Amino acid sequence: MSSHKSHRRRGAAQLNGNPKFWGRHAVLAAIANPERRVIKIWGTREALAQMDVPSAMPIQYCDVTDLARFVPRDAPHQGIVAEVAPLEDVWLSDVLEGHEEDERPLLVLDQVTDPHNVGAIFRSAAAFDAIAVVTQDRHAPPESGVLAKAASGALETMPWIRVVNLSRALEEIADHGYWRIGLTGHAEMTLDKALSPRRNALVLGAEGEGMRHNVAEHCDALAKLPISDRMESLNVSNAAAVALYAAATLRQPKGG
Amino acid sequence: MSSHKSHRRRGAAQLNGNPKFWGRHAVLAAIANPERRVIKIWGTREALAQMDVPSAMPIQYCDVTDLARFVPRDAPHQGIVAEVAPLEDVWLSDVLEGHEEDERPLLVLDQVTDPHNVGAIFRSAAAFDAIAVVTQDRHAPPESGVLAKAASGALETMPWIRVVNLSRALEEIADHGYWRIGLTGHAEMTLDKALSPRRNALVLGAEGEGMRHNVAEHCDALAKLPISDRMESLNVSNAAAVALYAAATLRQPKGG
Repeated sequence: MSSHKSHRRRGAAQLNGNPKFWGRHAVLAAIANPERRVIKIWGTREALAQMDVPSAMPIQYCDVTDLARFVPRDAPHQGIVAEVAPLEDVWLSDVLEGHEEDERPLLVLDQVTDPHNVGAIFRSAAAFDAIAVVTQDRHAPPESGVLAKAASGALETMPWIRVVNLSRALEEIADHGYWRIGLTGHAEMTLDKALSPRRNALVLGAEGEGMRHNVAEHCDALAKLPISDRMESLNVSNAAAVALYAAATLRQPKGG
Repeated sequence: MSSHKSHRRRGAAQLNGNPKFWGRHAVLAAIANPERRVIKIWGTREALAQMDVPSAMPIQYCDVTDLARFVPRDAPHQGIVAEVAPLEDVWLSDVLEGHEEDERPLLVLDQVTDPHNVGAIFRSAAAFDAIAVVTQDRHAPPESGVLAKAASGALETMPWIRVVNLSRALEEIADHGYWRIGLTGHAEMTLDKALSPRRNALVLGAEGEGMRHNVAEHCDALAKLPISDRMESLNVSNAAAVALYAAATLRQPKGG
């Protein structure tokens, strides 16, 4: 399936210089990731003393005032900031071919752009053991400090597949036996009834507009979460967490 | 139970002037809430034309540049800002006595302070039909624009009970027949096994520190979400959404 490789590009992060990550979880996870090049670390003596950073790392000690210049105002940096290189691209066909017998879900995001939400979604995807997160390159945020902090380390462990064309990616995903469920409040069926006992690809759209029509048309089923009439929708990261939990619960039925 | 009324105070919001809400959902929900006093509305002609604001409201038309002065930088105000009075206190004993036969859950938050998270939790609590959200006055954020925006209207419909002493509140909650489940990653039991088929009070602590020891001691059971070893925890609003979903699913067992 090498023809698909031409559809992917590098994340937009590289156009704007290297991302800076902050906070203990995000920085320690970046250091622990062999695929991640850590270019430089700035930290307070206090934070570094608590963190067990390998001595081979390019560390510069500095005080809190200096650190604040590297990060957005009020960013909870916890005394540590790292400049990193963005990760290498992950290719959809490689992931699909490497997990033919794997029943864990894929998570597909259509135009979810808020980095707090995308970061929290990575964290939940790792927590509920998804195989990978798929986004459309043009409509997803780059790697960033906000995203890495919200992901709490999961950006380093959860494969992030950026595709050029999400509809084509959904076709490829179906070719590998996934049941593609688009989550939308307009659906009749609830998610628990839509889930396949085998492999699910959970597709979520942006808040407000929701999934694009063309993306919904590339799903095998549309389903809603069982929410009250009191609310129109959930926050997208909360919806993703609930959907991943529902899929995980299906794979490991209740014991008692 | 009038003795408990002395334990409650007004939210901290009132110490710092009136909150300003922004964004269509938050402002329209405030207007629609008969308990909410809307002091003033600023909006662009375009936004107001789309919003159907009652003409009796104290509206001032202004342009986008003026609006930006009322809200934090980059706040997604959608052309509309409202100054409002904080809501009147909601009393725990009133809510408990008014819902004796109600099997929907209560949600209790210990020291969850981030207004984005608390707002998203209100949204999920309304979506999964909780009775009320209980927080400790000293360790919860005041009503604010960030919180109201994240709550997407739910701040107006979901009762917010602020108590002075959370342990004492948990005793009162137990007296009314709730099974109090504290969510913590250190528990042995998973949440699905801990849930009571009757009334549950779901207790969540802050990320990082988690629930305080004294709060955990006032729970009937401690339970964890079934997450992978890959992650230590979920974002607290995502954990709340999953817990509320699990409780709601128990009340309405699967049809198919």
